[in-house]
Amino acid sequence: MADSLAALREELSLANRILAHEGIVDAFGHVSVRHPTDPGRFLISRHRAPELVMPEDILEYTLDTEPVHQTNVRHYGERVIHGCIYQARPDVMAVCHHHAPSVMPYAISRAAMVPVFHLGASMGKVPFWDSRDDFGSTALVLVKPEEGRSLAKALGNGWVILMGRHGATVAGTSIRQTVFRTIYSCKNAELQTQARLLGHVEPLDAQEIELAAAYNLRPGPQERAWDYWVKRLRDAEARVAAGTSATAKPASAGKPKAKKPARAKRRKR
Amino acid sequence: MADSLAALREELSLANRILAHEGIVDAFGHVSVRHPTDPGRFLISRHRAPELVMPEDILEYTLDTEPVHQTNVRHYGERVIHGCIYQARPDVMAVCHHHAPSVMPYAISRAAMVPVFHLGASMGKVPFWDSRDDFGSTALVLVKPEEGRSLAKALGNGWVILMGRHGATVAGTSIRQTVFRTIYSCKNAELQTQARLLGHVEPLDAQEIELAAAYNLRPGPQERAWDYWVKRLRDAEARVAAGTSATAKPASAGKPKAKKPARAKRRKR
Amino acid sequence: MADSLAALREELSLANRILAHEGIVDAFGHVSVRHPTDPGRFLISRHRAPELVMPEDILEYTLDTEPVHQTNVRHYGERVIHGCIYQARPDVMAVCHHHAPSVMPYAISRAAMVPVFHLGASMGKVPFWDSRDDFGSTALVLVKPEEGRSLAKALGNGWVILMGRHGATVAGTSIRQTVFRTIYSCKNAELQTQARLLGHVEPLDAQEIELAAAYNLRPGPQERAWDYWVKRLRDAEARVAAGTSATAKPASAGKPKAKKPARAKRRKR
Amino acid sequence: MADSLAALREELSLANRILAHEGIVDAFGHVSVRHPTDPGRFLISRHRAPELVMPEDILEYTLDTEPVHQTNVRHYGERVIHGCIYQARPDVMAVCHHHAPSVMPYAISRAAMVPVFHLGASMGKVPFWDSRDDFGSTALVLVKPEEGRSLAKALGNGWVILMGRHGATVAGTSIRQTVFRTIYSCKNAELQTQARLLGHVEPLDAQEIELAAAYNLRPGPQERAWDYWVKRLRDAEARVAAGTSATAKPASAGKPKAKKPARAKRRKR
Repeated sequence: MADSLAALREELSLANRILAHEGIVDAFGHVSVRHPTDPGRFLISRHRAPELVMPEDILEYTLDTEPVHQTNVRHYGERVIHGCIYQARPDVMAVCHHHAPSVMPYAISRAAMVPVFHLGASMGKVPFWDSRDDFGSTALVLVKPEEGRSLAKALGNGWVILMGRHGATVAGTSIRQTVFRTIYSCKNAELQTQARLLGHVEPLDAQEIELAAAYNLRPGPQERAWDYWVKRLRDAEARVAAGTSATAKPASAGKPKAKKPARAKRRKR
Repeated sequence: MADSLAALREELSLANRILAHEGIVDAFGHVSVRHPTDPGRFLISRHRAPELVMPEDILEYTLDTEPVHQTNVRHYGERVIHGCIYQARPDVMAVCHHHAPSVMPYAISRAAMVPVFHLGASMGKVPFWDSRDDFGSTALVLVKPEEGRSLAKALGNGWVILMGRHGATVAGTSIRQTVFRTIYSCKNAELQTQARLLGHVEPLDAQEIELAAAYNLRPGPQERAWDYWVKRLRDAEARVAAGTSATAKPASAGKPKAKKPARAKRRKR
Repeated sequence: MADSLAALREELSLANRILAHEGIVDAFGHVSVRHPTDPGRFLISRHRAPELVMPEDILEYTLDTEPVHQTNVRHYGERVIHGCIYQARPDVMAVCHHHAPSVMPYAISRAAMVPVFHLGASMGKVPFWDSRDDFGSTALVLVKPEEGRSLAKALGNGWVILMGRHGATVAGTSIRQTVFRTIYSCKNAELQTQARLLGHVEPLDAQEIELAAAYNLRPGPQERAWDYWVKRLRDAEARVAAGTSATAKPASAGKPKAKKPARAKRRKR
Repeated sequence: MADSLAALREELSLANRILAHEGIVDAFGHVSVRHPTDPGRFLISRHRAPELVMPEDILEYTLDTEPVHQTNVRHYGERVIHGCIYQARPDVMAVCHHHAPSVMPYAISRAAMVPVFHLGASMGKVPFWDSRDDFGSTALVLVKPEEGRSLAKALGNGWVILMGRHGATVAGTSIRQTVFRTIYSCKNAELQTQARLLGHVEPLDAQEIELAAAYNLRPGPQERAWDYWVKRLRDAEARVAAGTSATAKPASAGKPKAKKPARAKRRKR
């Protein structure tokens, strides 16, 4: 368990890069965590793709999504999704918003997402929220507090919610639980789609959902999955580090391909 | 914003390799940009797969697709697609032609492609052009000016067009916008196909399309997505650079596997 | 053939990482082997994702799944799957339990899995076992001896069994045969699903299944496939080793990205 | 054009590894070339997965598939596929046999494969051959001369043939053309399947097939595609070389992970 703010920033940045590496988020999507000692604040990256998020990108916001510290960096437009869920749900400690390709077909077709295997059980009942119902035709993104509150209300005491023609939002009692629930609700959606193509979907019954969720949310399976995702990410990053190190050496100065300065500059934007 | 010809060549070569790395183009497909100071010219690579395109491969053409400078390298056969769109549409600054696997099923089945999530909104209405209508049975590729003009006419004031049994062409007001629209129209197509398999497709309505397109084409989301794709490409290229550097060192002279000279020769063809 | 316990541990750890690398297992799933000289014992990793399993993680258990040696590491919850199959089937020398995305749609839809190409023949007839039949609504995982015995009974003298809303279990007369049968039953499932989408599935007939299984389970094809999977895994691991080596060098001490100590610590849990 | 036997071995080994890298072949499948000066012979690898094939693995056979030189290495079981096609078709200079996942659903469902985009045109008409018709229930693999002759007869003057519940075989007038036709017939199959799921497949008409095939089989497109596949393969191999080089260095002797000696031994089998 991360017990200091620095460790939490590190863990949140890892969660960002894990979700990118596992194909849940691309340039868009974000993940946040409630402040460990001040429940009236939450931490989330500045405006950038999750794959690029490092601990130093993590900023603090109040639950009505005002930055706690002065800064001139750009903020995520949809941070009301996070702030409003933290306001409505004191038990929620981490939130992820994404447009994963496995889940989007459900957000577009309005087909119901249901747990179809034990590892998908932790998503529970998945309500469907449509911005049209309360706000008519919009740009679909949630940028106003009332939009965030409408979503949080629809989520109720659930953990995953579909957002029509837009994406999904996932909550949890920790960063790791939220990452676990996000990844396995996406895998569940993939499997449900394939089973449907085979002609029949046999979902878990209510008691199976409850028992399987409890089983998989214990520390053992949670740690095992987290260690696995961290390992995969670290391996991928090690592969890049090899190249960066190789091209940084004077011995290979003749290779003009990997333009380091240009890249460094781009990252500062 | 790229403000010199050298920077534009660099950006165009990056766009080529990004589109290859994201799975939009393979050995075929191409992307061009209008000349920054002479609107009567455009820049595009010589005849080679986008993944291999470097700044020095970029050539200049007039809008009727004559090379501006003498050269003995091979040219793309289908550059009329680019020239004719630049002629018909003074607002278009960059064009991409591709056969992405996500979009091709629409070019083959004639099913309509429609925006199904906010990030797909920037493609707008997608007309369908069939070479058979004006030219009968051909090799399907566009090599004559009249073929390019027919396509440009069908595109009208749109941004994406499907080409029957062939592919798609995408336009934009900058390289980055064209890359964004290309990648997200492909993702939109994938999602639409999956939603259709679930039994229903709920598209964005006209106002949602307009608002979501405007939202996503702002500089913030555009830069965030571009930085993400550049990062992914640079990481992939760094991994290769590590290997190239390793095998180039005398210490590993005993490894005959990676035959550098053969490869260098092949590239010169 | 591995002829010592150390070699067998090495081979079993390789099998774990091969199955992870080929996309059969993720954080969950496991593979075991019967003890080479004591048929009343089997070897399986301690509780961790297969991709992370090294020879030193392999533990010994009796067939009623008690650890042979005292240890304070965590054990897999579902090792009764392995123990009960070894008890019921003296001819079985290795067992794999997984939730591969290709096979899960059959475990969810109850559609029958049948051999549709020669390389899928070695799975033979695939029974369907549902925990609800004997045990009602559970967490779906098999943790009690009676659950393992029920599964083993349903497997009968077969080699692959589907488990409703949960996964599949595969047996074989050696680690390599079990890996082969696991990977090709998954490929068979993928192909069957796609053929079904095209409108018709023409399965192998009974004699074709028998002849093709016998052909492919000969040493030649088995070694060829094993060498291929080992090569792919070794290549992937070499890519990571390059990065790990690069970041471990003092010359690149300025790169804080790949935090080696944190990672080493995590692995010890 | 490869003009010596050594260059041809190099090119054939490249073709093997390209087809593996592009996902056409896995542990199984093979590709051959007719001897450049003796049309009564052909070259093909000894019995091993295409991804592992190096120039020194290439052996010579007569067209009735007898090895020209004494050797104690294992041979491919199905080399009659190659020998019999070279006997029946003097215009064929290279042959590939595979079980690619894109094409297998057609071999299983008996749905007709037709060119649906210009790059798929070079496959032409694709006959369907079923081992049951002439030989009843077999292991499905072709190991007898009469089986090879039956297949060659069914191929007629075509270039691609489907083999029921087994795979496909592709011919061409050179290694590069065969690789091109193999890869693009697989891509065509993928697109046809997806278009079918969208509800309609509009194939190329007979004249479009002829014109598009002629256009794409010209040297320009052929070289562009070959250079692209070579580049992708070389990049992948460079990434591995980096790791191999890193772990071979004394500085990283403390890393026991990548066991080089064990691997070297395995390769010699």
